[in-house]
Amino acid sequence: MLPIITAFERSPDRGKGQARDMRVRWAFEEVGQPYDVRLVSFEEMKQPAHRALQPFGQIPTYEEGSLVLFETGAIVFHIAERHAGLLPQEPNARARAIGWMFCALNTVEAPILELQVAKFAEANERWTEARLPLVKDRIRDRLGQLSARLGDAEWLDGGFSAGDLLMVTVLRRLNISGLLDEYPNLAAYVARGEARPAFRRAFDAQLAVFTAASAGR
Amino acid sequence: MLPIITAFERSPDRGKGQARDMRVRWAFEEVGQPYDVRLVSFEEMKQPAHRALQPFGQIPTYEEGSLVLFETGAIVFHIAERHAGLLPQEPNARARAIGWMFCALNTVEAPILELQVAKFAEANERWTEARLPLVKDRIRDRLGQLSARLGDAEWLDGGFSAGDLLMVTVLRRLNISGLLDEYPNLAAYVARGEARPAFRRAFDAQLAVFTAASAGR
Repeated sequence: MLPIITAFERSPDRGKGQARDMRVRWAFEEVGQPYDVRLVSFEEMKQPAHRALQPFGQIPTYEEGSLVLFETGAIVFHIAERHAGLLPQEPNARARAIGWMFCALNTVEAPILELQVAKFAEANERWTEARLPLVKDRIRDRLGQLSARLGDAEWLDGGFSAGDLLMVTVLRRLNISGLLDEYPNLAAYVARGEARPAFRRAFDAQLAVFTAASAGR
Repeated sequence: MLPIITAFERSPDRGKGQARDMRVRWAFEEVGQPYDVRLVSFEEMKQPAHRALQPFGQIPTYEEGSLVLFETGAIVFHIAERHAGLLPQEPNARARAIGWMFCALNTVEAPILELQVAKFAEANERWTEARLPLVKDRIRDRLGQLSARLGDAEWLDGGFSAGDLLMVTVLRRLNISGLLDEYPNLAAYVARGEARPAFRRAFDAQLAVFTAASAGR
């Protein structure tokens, strides 16, 4: 039995790889683990059956025998612990790579989620245009600090790790904002992530789902 | 040599245990690991010496021999991996507890951080009063879902774990908002966390730092 993840039947990002199943697909591809996908509709995501797997009614989930997981950080970590390729073996390097996983999902993603909220949930509020520059400046604070730490290194700490995988997917959320281009080393870092064959395979797989769903209507 | 963490010389929360060193102190106390604390001023946090440890100029950091870590999730996980008491041994239960760690720091903390930003960074903006109800409703969404999952259980998944430790500290950030009281089982859950002897010892230790700093001025 292959592990099974859930993904949007019809992703709201129209196959741009911004939905969070992309992170898990990419991790599977990096370690060479085949997986199955169960597609869920927005309607199904709010139902008790899905809430039993994911209390917040989101995707992805991960099922493997009797184990059910949610939170992409936890799923990627679970994959990384069980397969070579996403975490260094040396204990201190491993601890630091795990640090970058948490950093991506807390310190860096939090202000980026604020921008998503401002642009979507609060798109039509009267304050949003005046407020957006403040939101963007808070992201710039974090990007500037991250850019300074990365410098001209290829990845955040030695070889590519699950920390880079999550950081790249978090930074990719900024694609349409133009913010990333203000930090050329971060833009190049994201491009390096996107150029990895495992990223391409994962991207193509999620795009194929959206393309098929669109053709069906 | 004991592990060394950094903490605010003078915490902006005036010793209420909201600064993030509280999470790490609590984890140390749960597992019975003594630790040293190096206090840093706001000025020092922005200097290159501290940025070398923490690229975002924040506290806490964790130093143990040649290992330097930041991100409370990663530090608490590092402690939990090396000592009994914060993660179950059974592999599936352990994976789920790690899931709750990521859940606390991503799904639950992100909207709560938005409220902090609105109340502090944007306190004097002309839109803040009108916008606060939207921010609070986004938190209510998550709290309602978390409350439904917790039900009448004592902890999120079996015995107390690092997932509960982080979730309690994240939910405690809502103390002054009154939001937590709308979900009695979550308020009771936080109170259970705060009643643990290890929490009390950690709380008293961080309060003593603030009290001493205040007496010195």
